[in-house]
Amino acid sequence: MSATVFDNPWLKGLFADPDMAAILSPERSLTHMLAFEAAWSRACGKAGLFDAAEAEAAAQAITGAHIDLDDLAEGTAQDGVPVPRLVRQLKQHAPATAIHRGATSQDVMDTALVLALRDVSDLVASRLDTICGLLDDLDERFGAAPLIGRTRMQAATQITVHDRLLTWRTPLEGHKTRLAEIRPRVERVQIGGASGDRLALGPQGDAIAADVAAALGLFPTTKAWHAMREGIAEYATWLSLVSGSLGKLGQDVALMAQQGIEEIALSGTGGSSAMPHKQNPVAAELLVTLARFNAVQVSAMHHAMIHEQERSGAAWSLEWMVLPQMLMATARATGVATKLCQSIDRIGAPPTAQRHL
Amino acid sequence: MSATVFDNPWLKGLFADPDMAAILSPERSLTHMLAFEAAWSRACGKAGLFDAAEAEAAAQAITGAHIDLDDLAEGTAQDGVPVPRLVRQLKQHAPATAIHRGATSQDVMDTALVLALRDVSDLVASRLDTICGLLDDLDERFGAAPLIGRTRMQAATQITVHDRLLTWRTPLEGHKTRLAEIRPRVERVQIGGASGDRLALGPQGDAIAADVAAALGLFPTTKAWHAMREGIAEYATWLSLVSGSLGKLGQDVALMAQQGIEEIALSGTGGSSAMPHKQNPVAAELLVTLARFNAVQVSAMHHAMIHEQERSGAAWSLEWMVLPQMLMATARATGVATKLCQSIDRIGAPPTAQRHL
Amino acid sequence: MSATVFDNPWLKGLFADPDMAAILSPERSLTHMLAFEAAWSRACGKAGLFDAAEAEAAAQAITGAHIDLDDLAEGTAQDGVPVPRLVRQLKQHAPATAIHRGATSQDVMDTALVLALRDVSDLVASRLDTICGLLDDLDERFGAAPLIGRTRMQAATQITVHDRLLTWRTPLEGHKTRLAEIRPRVERVQIGGASGDRLALGPQGDAIAADVAAALGLFPTTKAWHAMREGIAEYATWLSLVSGSLGKLGQDVALMAQQGIEEIALSGTGGSSAMPHKQNPVAAELLVTLARFNAVQVSAMHHAMIHEQERSGAAWSLEWMVLPQMLMATARATGVATKLCQSIDRIGAPPTAQRHL
Amino acid sequence: MSATVFDNPWLKGLFADPDMAAILSPERSLTHMLAFEAAWSRACGKAGLFDAAEAEAAAQAITGAHIDLDDLAEGTAQDGVPVPRLVRQLKQHAPATAIHRGATSQDVMDTALVLALRDVSDLVASRLDTICGLLDDLDERFGAAPLIGRTRMQAATQITVHDRLLTWRTPLEGHKTRLAEIRPRVERVQIGGASGDRLALGPQGDAIAADVAAALGLFPTTKAWHAMREGIAEYATWLSLVSGSLGKLGQDVALMAQQGIEEIALSGTGGSSAMPHKQNPVAAELLVTLARFNAVQVSAMHHAMIHEQERSGAAWSLEWMVLPQMLMATARATGVATKLCQSIDRIGAPPTAQRHL
Repeated sequence: MSATVFDNPWLKGLFADPDMAAILSPERSLTHMLAFEAAWSRACGKAGLFDAAEAEAAAQAITGAHIDLDDLAEGTAQDGVPVPRLVRQLKQHAPATAIHRGATSQDVMDTALVLALRDVSDLVASRLDTICGLLDDLDERFGAAPLIGRTRMQAATQITVHDRLLTWRTPLEGHKTRLAEIRPRVERVQIGGASGDRLALGPQGDAIAADVAAALGLFPTTKAWHAMREGIAEYATWLSLVSGSLGKLGQDVALMAQQGIEEIALSGTGGSSAMPHKQNPVAAELLVTLARFNAVQVSAMHHAMIHEQERSGAAWSLEWMVLPQMLMATARATGVATKLCQSIDRIGAPPTAQRHL
Repeated sequence: MSATVFDNPWLKGLFADPDMAAILSPERSLTHMLAFEAAWSRACGKAGLFDAAEAEAAAQAITGAHIDLDDLAEGTAQDGVPVPRLVRQLKQHAPATAIHRGATSQDVMDTALVLALRDVSDLVASRLDTICGLLDDLDERFGAAPLIGRTRMQAATQITVHDRLLTWRTPLEGHKTRLAEIRPRVERVQIGGASGDRLALGPQGDAIAADVAAALGLFPTTKAWHAMREGIAEYATWLSLVSGSLGKLGQDVALMAQQGIEEIALSGTGGSSAMPHKQNPVAAELLVTLARFNAVQVSAMHHAMIHEQERSGAAWSLEWMVLPQMLMATARATGVATKLCQSIDRIGAPPTAQRHL
Repeated sequence: MSATVFDNPWLKGLFADPDMAAILSPERSLTHMLAFEAAWSRACGKAGLFDAAEAEAAAQAITGAHIDLDDLAEGTAQDGVPVPRLVRQLKQHAPATAIHRGATSQDVMDTALVLALRDVSDLVASRLDTICGLLDDLDERFGAAPLIGRTRMQAATQITVHDRLLTWRTPLEGHKTRLAEIRPRVERVQIGGASGDRLALGPQGDAIAADVAAALGLFPTTKAWHAMREGIAEYATWLSLVSGSLGKLGQDVALMAQQGIEEIALSGTGGSSAMPHKQNPVAAELLVTLARFNAVQVSAMHHAMIHEQERSGAAWSLEWMVLPQMLMATARATGVATKLCQSIDRIGAPPTAQRHL
Repeated sequence: MSATVFDNPWLKGLFADPDMAAILSPERSLTHMLAFEAAWSRACGKAGLFDAAEAEAAAQAITGAHIDLDDLAEGTAQDGVPVPRLVRQLKQHAPATAIHRGATSQDVMDTALVLALRDVSDLVASRLDTICGLLDDLDERFGAAPLIGRTRMQAATQITVHDRLLTWRTPLEGHKTRLAEIRPRVERVQIGGASGDRLALGPQGDAIAADVAAALGLFPTTKAWHAMREGIAEYATWLSLVSGSLGKLGQDVALMAQQGIEEIALSGTGGSSAMPHKQNPVAAELLVTLARFNAVQVSAMHHAMIHEQERSGAAWSLEWMVLPQMLMATARATGVATKLCQSIDRIGAPPTAQRHL
């Protein structure tokens, strides 16, 4: 059991997102890594770098291989990456000469990562659609209701609920547009070999990359992006843009729910161990937490761009520490925002509030 | 005189970028703010909200107005923004009823900001072109030379200088593509009025916004983005992506310039007060500094998205503290990278290095 | 299974620290929370707020209570904290009137946290001692050996290995001094009740706090620190100071291990899936990664000081997301540094390097 | 004129702190650098490293030297530090052999920095005293007044104004204690020479360091801390702890000032260009801004601890970019908090608020 909020046996109730957890699960990651290795064997077989029959046998053995995770952990402790040990295990099950040769650890792990990010993008985009739909519903029900516009936390002029909802919804549409632009820059196969130049593949390099990409449903590349991390950093930024917009929504709801303000009524709020009567807007606060969490983490992903030479163990590992958590936080933010929107029973200025204008 | 590196009388030699400093200068900002106010008067005159003749008179008076900066500073200390006092000054020179009415401080300041960002984008894009051209030149001269590929700072396999240059150049092309996508999301007029709903403009709101936008060469908007800061945050992120990629270049050069490695020869390196013979790769190190600076600052811009209600003085002011410096750092990074590329006399493994392979 | 590096089945080989994992384990946290509740019942019994016999019965029942973790997770999802549900469970096993009354969730969770931090401090202090001892050993063996002093990554003047070792060791001594100053500010019982004023305890408040503190081996307090988080932020900062100093050590070692520099020889280095001959200084790089990770996270802990009113769910939860990971990263850094120091077979300039001087 | 908020001709009204600006002014920095050089000449003269008469002549010439700042800027652009050029200028006015010899740029600049930090500590400590005094006054006037305790932004139980004031005041006392612990770790002379080992000083090294320290009123050192930056990082952290505690105060005030809450009445609030009637709690918001600014910047100071070898131009320059601004922000926060406390006309729940309980 874990100390991180996403896995802790009780905090996971607040922070975990099962759909995202499934995408990022070690099982799924391993499947992605094996999918790369299988596609690699086949593509190299087709290109004549591996014996074709051996390559196909290897691909089939790889796909169904049982992996010893303890051995993998031991190898990672030693090598800094699990792949050398993974490859050693695979070679026990299939023709060693038709496995991994010409590839490198980063090819395997980065390709596995982008396969996960593809699923992430589908998930988050779908969640954003859901939230937009819920906001549309709220707009239909309450959009015409008056609300006190507040600037610098002070009553300004009267607006409508529609105006407020629009500041929550509009950025989400923009994030979907951004995602559509970013996806082709991220969902790219990683193939470079030892120093990223595909030298071991000879003139067949681009063909092999294209074959592997096609097998995995990714975009082909003409150059390894081992040491060019701006695509990953951009993706992480997008995550933080999403959670940031939802954090604004959460901050607004928490402010609207204050006694004396009462511009929103929520069902399903949280209780207190000291005051059972309290109606805590836990979901709204959590959106702020997740937004600030990502706003901090995004910094690490930008530092990780300063990637020495052909591969920086230091910078690359920093991504491993940070990106999965940003993914978890972003997914959770979309889930919490969905639930929060569903829990809004009323939105708009209460009659008593008119006096503030 | 200032304590910040961009203005300090000697550190500015290392950190200042005169072109960017001109874009961000208070004089230019003031011009942008006045341009908004003039366009506003004219557009409201055209729409019938202001008397047409008064509006034109106001616009002309605004354009040439002499502004008392001390008064502006005093007003900013009081109001948190300079605009109330700016408007008060303008009203002393022109028909008060045809000035600013229906607009708000944030309309003026955010529109002035995006006018600056338009110039920034032109500047940085042009610098990126220059750097790409210089890298092409280096590729032509030295691309075929051997270089030891290094992963985890250890000698891996032999690559060519071309391979290394490609990891420096490719991301810069991507950044130009990103910029082209982002510009229409940023170069948008800000018009909302007191609570961001354009209520004071009545049915003419969109027409006025379109007129002001056209006069200033910006994209029109149908909604104020006062409290939706993801566009500004995205732009800041782009700045950090640019400086991050250049930071990788700088880090590589600093590593290549080490005695014992000697994969690069630079002219115009820096001296030491203790050791006059030293050849310090100051420009390369500075690229790393600027990249890490922006990687830190980008976090603040993401926090600033958590913008309460219709306007958060707290979150908005945080942008003011951070964004100009990110702009300065990014411009300086492009300038330093240009100079560094120009100073490369030789790149590639020295003959003695072959033994490492 | 988890996506975070500390729990992932293979990455944990690189990132996990079993000793710290034990301290932060949910089992241990639960034990700490129950220890608070038991001490609370007893102290309130002694003070006459609870019936004395019921209080003792409650304390005994609490200590041995079996907790349903799924119920706790469900409650946390609802309430934002596990304590309301924990208390409800406890009340099924013991006299309800002698349980938790007068306390609040934050009292329980923060006190449990500082009980963990006490163990953390012991662990990290002991690890720092170990590292200092290893550096002393290295100094004895290699201290007199010449080394090229390097400034701005360029050869400067000849120093000795002793000089370099001193820049690694000196800060660690300082960190032990800092910790001794900080511990009394952190290891303080948290007792405040609903709004932090101990109102429900009447004039007995300070006595109860002192009793609970004594039972748990913590310092007493006269005021709840629910909303005063500078002590926790300072502790987090200390963690990052420790990992930062070790990161400098790691960065130096990675630079010294470069071919062409060869100022250090390490055993037990990592292999590559593409190049079995490589000697990757994985431990050195990992120290850099962990230092940068903490340098990013520390920002979140400072943001969490901006804690609204008597309790901010948003700011408090941000600590939960970040602090455990900083603890894990710091412990791992001390473990890795220990191993790295033990793996140094030689340190000092190789004969061939003299030419750089 | 500058784009940074501390120097911008109108934003400085909101952000500048004249006392801190004086401490950090280039004029003062230059004076500090010259003070080091003069003390250096004298100490080396006394130790017999320089001719005694020449050393005294040099010290006197240095103290009154007119420095050409443009030349300094040009030199900094080239060398990455101003000192080589500064020394060259000084040698034109005095015996060259009795100037700077045995010292290095970092000795001069870091010592000048800590001389500034000494003044900073006096200033901020005195400001904290002032704020504590003002909070005591408020406590005397309003401490007994009822206030609704709020947790998770929701009404909890009734507390008193005294309780709230205590959460603002207590951390400030702690910060003064922390500062007293930190000062001896920061106010230390920096002396190391080319590679930080004082080799050029021979057996006189410690005596010279002690003499220079005594002349400047700093603590002596037995080792250069060129590459050990934890003291500076710790100081920066302290700044952020201070601004963080004041940010919590500001956040609370902004929340208390909301219409519908009205728990505080402020004089001297800010106006709006659109709504002249508004009472914007600009000072309260600014405290939040400054706290978040520092919470971001502190990350950079921790990254700067990863300082390669005997001197990292990259890491050191990052401190120059960030630390002065943290100093400015912290001083401004203390100034704003002072003004804010003075502007409180009433604090405590309004009669109408009782219904929330």
